[in-house]
This record gives sequence, C-alpha cells and structure tokens, in this order.
Amino acid sequence: MTDAQTRRLVLWIEYDGTDFNGWQVQPGQRTVQSEIEAALSKMCNEPVRIVGSGRTDSGVHALGQVAHFNARSAIPPFKFALGLNTLLARDISITDCREVYTPFHAQHDALRKTYRYRILFRRRPSALRRHCTWHVKSPLDIAAMQKAAEILQGERDFESFRAEGTPVESTVRNLERLEVRPVEDELHIEATANGFLRHMVRNIVGTLVEVGRGDRTPGSMADLLGARDRKQAAPTCPPQGLTLVCVDYGEKMPPEAPPDPSEKKG
Amino acid sequence: MTDAQTRRLVLWIEYDGTDFNGWQVQPGQRTVQSEIEAALSKMCNEPVRIVGSGRTDSGVHALGQVAHFNARSAIPPFKFALGLNTLLARDISITDCREVYTPFHAQHDALRKTYRYRILFRRRPSALRRHCTWHVKSPLDIAAMQKAAEILQGERDFESFRAEGTPVESTVRNLERLEVRPVEDELHIEATANGFLRHMVRNIVGTLVEVGRGDRTPGSMADLLGARDRKQAAPTCPPQGLTLVCVDYGEKMPPEAPPDPSEKKG
Repeated sequence: MTDAQTRRLVLWIEYDGTDFNGWQVQPGQRTVQSEIEAALSKMCNEPVRIVGSGRTDSGVHALGQVAHFNARSAIPPFKFALGLNTLLARDISITDCREVYTPFHAQHDALRKTYRYRILFRRRPSALRRHCTWHVKSPLDIAAMQKAAEILQGERDFESFRAEGTPVESTVRNLERLEVRPVEDELHIEATANGFLRHMVRNIVGTLVEVGRGDRTPGSMADLLGARDRKQAAPTCPPQGLTLVCVDYGEKMPPEAPPDPSEKKG
Repeated sequence: MTDAQTRRLVLWIEYDGTDFNGWQVQPGQRTVQSEIEAALSKMCNEPVRIVGSGRTDSGVHALGQVAHFNARSAIPPFKFALGLNTLLARDISITDCREVYTPFHAQHDALRKTYRYRILFRRRPSALRRHCTWHVKSPLDIAAMQKAAEILQGERDFESFRAEGTPVESTVRNLERLEVRPVEDELHIEATANGFLRHMVRNIVGTLVEVGRGDRTPGSMADLLGARDRKQAAPTCPPQGLTLVCVDYGEKMPPEAPPDPSEKKG
C-alpha cells in the first residue's frame, strides 16, 4: 500500500492462452496482462499496472492465475470482477476479486504453484481438445513414467530442465509433487513446486514421454538431474497442453468476501 | 452399393462447431459436410458426397457424428482417416473409418442418437469453457429439473419443443432417456431418442432451466406437452453447450477393423 487512499486488490484469472502471446506485456502483442491493464485503467480512469504470480508462455492456459494491483478508485471488489468481465474479450475471465488489508504481493508471497499438463493418448487427433492437449499417438508405459516422476520429485537442481539462456540465481527448486495420472483417454501430469524455472514443466513432460515410449529408463532421471545439461533432456513439448491450475499463498491468501447482495443474478 | 466396383465407407467425425455454419452444405458457407467432401474429393480424384446421420446447427459440436460415402478409390479405410486428418483443418477430426460390406445408410439406419448439453452454473464466466458450455448464473433447483425431465421421458408428441416452420411427418419421438446430472460446476443434460426434431434438445434444456429457476413447476411439463404449442415452451438456449455424442446403429453398426500394422505410430 503506497498511501492511505490506495487500496490493494487481488484478481483470480482464468484464460485460454490460444490467442495470446503469453501473460507478460510486450509492445505490439496481445497479452493477458496488457488486456487486463487496459480494462482496469478504463475502469479506474488512471493507468493501472498489475503484478502477476509469474509469467506464462504463449499458448499456455490458466485456471487460477493470481495478480494484484493498486487502485485509488472506490469500486467494490465484486464490481471490478463484473466490470472486467464485461470489458474483456471472452478468452479471459475474472473468477474472483478480493481486497487485501494486510501486505500482499502476488509474485513474492506465492508459496507454491500447481501446473497440469494434458496428453491425449489415442490413435486419432481430437478436434474439441486440440487447444488444451498434446496428442501423443505412440503407446506409453505409464508405470515407467510414474517411476521416473518419483525420482524427479523433491528438492533438486533442475538445470537440465530449464530453458537455456535465462539467468536465474539458483536452479534448485522443491518439486513437492509430480504425478502421472491416466484420466480416460488422457494422461494428466501434475506438478506442484515452490517455483518453476522457464519451460521446466514442459521439459519434464517431454522427458517423461520419452520414458513412456521406452527411449529412456526411469533410472536415467538421476543421471539427467546430475548432468545439469539442458541438451541431455528431451525437447520442450508444445505449450497448449499446459495450464497453471492454482497458486498457493498459505496464510497470506486473501480471505473470500461474502457475496454482495446487490449483485444481480442473471 | 451402386455397382460392383464402388465401396461404401463410414466415417466417425468429431468437430468443434464454433467456426462452422453447422453440418450441412450451404453455398458460400463453411460447413463440416462441405469441408469433408472437399477433402474426400481431393483424395479420390472425383467428386464425393457424404450422407451424415443428420444435421447439427451452427455452433453445435460433435464427438461421434457418423457419415457414409461411396468411393471407387482403392484407398484402405485407415488411410482415409489419416489422409483426411492431414487435409482437414484441425477443428474437424476423423476418429475412425470403416468399410461396410452389407447395406448401411448413416441417416436411415440410425436407431437412436445421444446429445449432451453442458450448463456452467457458477457465479463467473469461464474463459476455457466459453465455447462448450452455457453460463447460467442463477441458482438452479436440480431436483426439480430432474423431476421435470422424468415427465418428458418416453414416447411423446414434442410439437411444443420443435423449431417453428419446419415441416415434418410426425412430431412424436421416443425420448428414451433425459438425464440431468451435476458434474462439478456443470450440469449435464443428456438426451437419447430415436430421433430429434429441430432445436428439440435446446428447447427442452431452456425449459428445464426455467424449471430450475422456479419459473415453471415440474408438473407443468405434462400441460406443455399437451399444448402442442411452441410458444408455451422456453426460448431456444444457445448452441455452444450442445454436443452430438453418438449415433447408435444396433446390429447394423459396421464392425471395427483391426488396426493396420503398416500405420506408422507417431
């Protein structure tokens, strides 16, 4: 909170990443952040910047992205949600808006994030799920993938799984959970960690699929982690299978406001 | 089969109806039928027409639409599937192709069809499901909707639920099953019948939602059926919630061919 009259508000955001050049503002590009900032600035009659929990790449979706912003406007939170959903294109939806009265930072206070990657494993492609799955036609040994996932779990150095050329202080992350779960004709790979390096989930998924195809053994994951060499892991798999599911703030999570009785039901 | 050299083949088709003007060929419009016919004609080097199990409206999806066609080409069924999926835009996918050796007609031999309508019932819209659900914000009495659905089941005259001005021989259909089922934050309404009148599912769903909102009673369904008056039912609900799930041909269902060993796994 910068001054007494400024309020801090938090947004929960769902988006279909298909037609966006990712989350982060980039000149001349359609991004989720810039669309929301434009709509908020209109509502508040002043330039508003938002801070997200982190970026997502072009084509990656979100069910529960979180962002905060400061506003001098007196608009109540539920009216921000309603107003934004009216102003924004339908591939972004604001699923909640809450005001916070204690310090809260969408990026720095995030304790952990959960991503889900959806693989479609059947013979033929799917028209209806083309934007939210990666179609893998080859048979996959799911048990081997689950064994490999177990080895990758824990506090590890993920240097081998990060995009080359992105400077970071440390490449160690605590991958608390990496689950490979068949769901009908899909395979869902869910990852929860205290932080993710750039392309980390997609590089892990690409590598697990190579294990599933029999091109790598589950046991080779330990060597791969030890090698600290991006070239030894599989190519980055395509973005459209990936969704940021939720961001966990623990006790810092802004409490839910009771529904406003004045909000019209439609 | 028109002559000894002509083969009859059957396609199973999934499509995302969002960007189509429905199934049926219409001059100057992008339709599912015309896209498939263009691709098949290219593969067969002759004009090919397909006959679907029935039409679907603009914006309506299909998981298991069925269509047949005749071809003089010697292309094996799995190569039709592969070739079509290569030629077609990604919002259509051919999920299977089989050759039939006994008489088969995709429209006349259909014994029953199943449609699913997905309602999203939560406070805020969904970016990721905007093309496959109808967003209903008001609270819905699901038990009342289920009671109303039970009354509509059976062999009934659905005159009150069909699009005005479409000539048909009879408006009696056997609605074998009409199920209202909550699935997380969605309500799925599934209908199986020996045939559907134009807009019948969407008019039934619109009416069931009015029951759910308390604007009609479940008991009023009997009067509504008896009235044989389209104006007494609810407005047609939007198309994007509707999917043609499957078409049942009973014993006439063309048997599945064993997978061709020459088909490359990708």
